[in-house]
Amino acid sequence: MTELYGAIEAGGTKFAVAVGYKNGEILKRGTIKTTTPEDTMAQVFDFFDQYQDDIISFGIGSFGPIGVNEKLENYGYITDTPKVAWQNYNFIGDMKVHYDVPMLWTTDVNVAAYGEHILGAGQNFDNVFYTTIGTGVGSGVITRGEVYNGRAHPETGHLMMRRHPEDNFEGTCPFHKDCLEGLACGPAIEARWGEKAYDLNENHKAWEFEAYYLAQAALDFTLTFSPDIMIFGGGVSKQEHLMDMIRDEFAKMMNGYITLPDLKDYIVPVSLGDDAGIIGSLLLAEKVAR
Amino acid sequence: MTELYGAIEAGGTKFAVAVGYKNGEILKRGTIKTTTPEDTMAQVFDFFDQYQDDIISFGIGSFGPIGVNEKLENYGYITDTPKVAWQNYNFIGDMKVHYDVPMLWTTDVNVAAYGEHILGAGQNFDNVFYTTIGTGVGSGVITRGEVYNGRAHPETGHLMMRRHPEDNFEGTCPFHKDCLEGLACGPAIEARWGEKAYDLNENHKAWEFEAYYLAQAALDFTLTFSPDIMIFGGGVSKQEHLMDMIRDEFAKMMNGYITLPDLKDYIVPVSLGDDAGIIGSLLLAEKVAR
Repeated sequence: MTELYGAIEAGGTKFAVAVGYKNGEILKRGTIKTTTPEDTMAQVFDFFDQYQDDIISFGIGSFGPIGVNEKLENYGYITDTPKVAWQNYNFIGDMKVHYDVPMLWTTDVNVAAYGEHILGAGQNFDNVFYTTIGTGVGSGVITRGEVYNGRAHPETGHLMMRRHPEDNFEGTCPFHKDCLEGLACGPAIEARWGEKAYDLNENHKAWEFEAYYLAQAALDFTLTFSPDIMIFGGGVSKQEHLMDMIRDEFAKMMNGYITLPDLKDYIVPVSLGDDAGIIGSLLLAEKVAR
Repeated sequence: MTELYGAIEAGGTKFAVAVGYKNGEILKRGTIKTTTPEDTMAQVFDFFDQYQDDIISFGIGSFGPIGVNEKLENYGYITDTPKVAWQNYNFIGDMKVHYDVPMLWTTDVNVAAYGEHILGAGQNFDNVFYTTIGTGVGSGVITRGEVYNGRAHPETGHLMMRRHPEDNFEGTCPFHKDCLEGLACGPAIEARWGEKAYDLNENHKAWEFEAYYLAQAALDFTLTFSPDIMIFGGGVSKQEHLMDMIRDEFAKMMNGYITLPDLKDYIVPVSLGDDAGIIGSLLLAEKVAR
């Protein structure tokens, strides 16, 4: 019998699924559209059922908010998501009905952070802070080599921001208007400038604002979690010129208060790209199987 | 032989020292003025030498910044403090010369957080966030029952703040002017209003500003660390009316985004008062002796 690990990266628009071996090595992968739990999960079960006898554990990273605290009743659930069909869906309960093996359940950003921690930019560090900037903004955190959760999981997209002095855009967050996500996510950039982020050229004012907000977020994360490395992923961070702009703003804001590694080694882009999440899920399955 | 624990809360103006038993029970305590390492530590050693044969471990919380990462060369040191005499003082190295027992070394705010976690307001919770607002602002963090450190320790006093719209005070922080500490610590209140915080009456505008900044800090801590409880200590937080003002501002800022316990049980004053630190140090000595 071959021992296999199961991995699910449950995103708001699509699920990535995979089975594989140790060290994040993928045997087979698939993509499933996120529609309703009934429909999407039926396909998830179809995928894994082929390997049912060999899968010894699962690593699952889900869009949120999700219940991650085993002491609370909502553990294993997707909770009050704006995706109505998925509200209060008992993800782990449903998985356990099908597969009676250990499961590591955490956020989609935490699995990506773990992937980067083991095989990516964060592989030499115990404390890895990963932030994705795309349709939304969220962070995954590894502390002392473990996926971080408190009472709930981090929700860094909603940090209160000091505004860039020239930025009058009201913000897109339905809860807070001009929190980090409301000012800096992809849809906020598009709403502010009337063009998608990837259509804006390198010298566009948009990037000055973006760097200002992401540097401010990096500052706050440094002052709270004190990670060894600060990794940015997601669609918006694919702009290569943006990293240096963030580093420059960050240095100005920090003003030498904390001694840090060279910022080129501290504020970095994701190194596993879009695979960080599914590889991280596989690695977490391996970890929970031990 | 009686087994005793040694405790040091090393503050910028005074050291509290104690020996005691399990469960934070103090046998003998003392206070020593913070002058130079030579002078202050000579008195520290005099105090503990009486119990040298019985002390089986130490818990030490120090003013900072300090080196807390065992992988870095500055572990056990007070590092680049503005107190010149204490810069690069090898605190743990010096202690180990005198006492060859296990030592738990962390920040002064982390020992207070641990005291509150075991015997105070946070005693039913795994994740406790403690913030002191006095001469400075700093936070101690307990996650999963352990003192939190990353690469370094949290430095929450220097978070970037959104300004209260009516606040034009430039701020007192020598590094950042108007960070959290620069706008909300005791000396900032005094510099802004020309009176010490404890002389300002309950209806003074000062408290509206203060609640705004502390609520904003509580929001950012909730969105990053996601603690079970948010405890405020230090001189400024002794204003009883301030807690409700912080809760009200916090509720407005969060705007229902995260489901939390009743805010009266979530945002609370320190319950061990000024003893949180020395009791926490004693409890950490007990923990490290195991």
